[in-house]
Amino acid sequence: MKFTHLAALMLAALTTATALAQAKPEDQIKYRQSAMVVGARSVAALNAMAKGDVPFNPEQAQAHANVLANLTRVDAALAAYGPGTDKGAPTKAAPKIWSEPAQFKAAFDRFATASQALPAAAGSVATLKGALADLGKTCKGCHDDYRQR
Amino acid sequence: MKFTHLAALMLAALTTATALAQAKPEDQIKYRQSAMVVGARSVAALNAMAKGDVPFNPEQAQAHANVLANLTRVDAALAAYGPGTDKGAPTKAAPKIWSEPAQFKAAFDRFATASQALPAAAGSVATLKGALADLGKTCKGCHDDYRQR
Repeated sequence: MKFTHLAALMLAALTTATALAQAKPEDQIKYRQSAMVVGARSVAALNAMAKGDVPFNPEQAQAHANVLANLTRVDAALAAYGPGTDKGAPTKAAPKIWSEPAQFKAAFDRFATASQALPAAAGSVATLKGALADLGKTCKGCHDDYRQR
Repeated sequence: MKFTHLAALMLAALTTATALAQAKPEDQIKYRQSAMVVGARSVAALNAMAKGDVPFNPEQAQAHANVLANLTRVDAALAAYGPGTDKGAPTKAAPKIWSEPAQFKAAFDRFATASQALPAAAGSVATLKGALADLGKTCKGCHDDYRQR
């Protein structure tokens, strides 16, 4: 039974990976660039509230925090940087993503962890500020290393 | 006091609207197109699970459902179709969006409502199927009326 369960899990993981990998490189590139545009808008909206440029709106803060938390939670996010997606459309993604995938995954995971801390922090400006500062470091860290100018 | 509260709310709404409206038309068009790409991927992932093309994964179903629910919850979504965003970059958005804004908003609200029903329905294939069918109608309804071919 245990073996069957493990086999089923492995099959499930493979099937999901296969389905995700079916997307063409240009579609993966489009997806990851779109997720960046969407995520950047949410970061900007949260930053504007944290800085007081716009009044703090708890519902909107929660919604933007949830966008970021869940965009990094879907398997599609990291899969969009999978093997073969280094070309196929114009991209600023650096070759290091594919030459050092473990380090890239670690950087992505830091970004995901910081994103997923946002919803719990979005209830007040004070907690939001701290969470955004943490998030900002993970954005910069990844962009410095893995985005070409 | 009541007047002060109302005035503060109005000021907050105006300030938020102003901040959102500051985005250039081309950036609003890019944002809404990116949100569509991201949302479409999440719909596809949920559909694949609902149809059994890939095994049902409750965590991934929840994450994709939350992406859709929150992308329609942020003010940025409808603001991206605001006045003046009918041009500025290539777009398939139909002129009717700006000539009948109340009807467009009603169609958007139907899409938002169906999207926001997904998280509660994402716990099982059976409930997910129903919620996706409801969502699909609101996608089609809006695309039929407000997307040019």
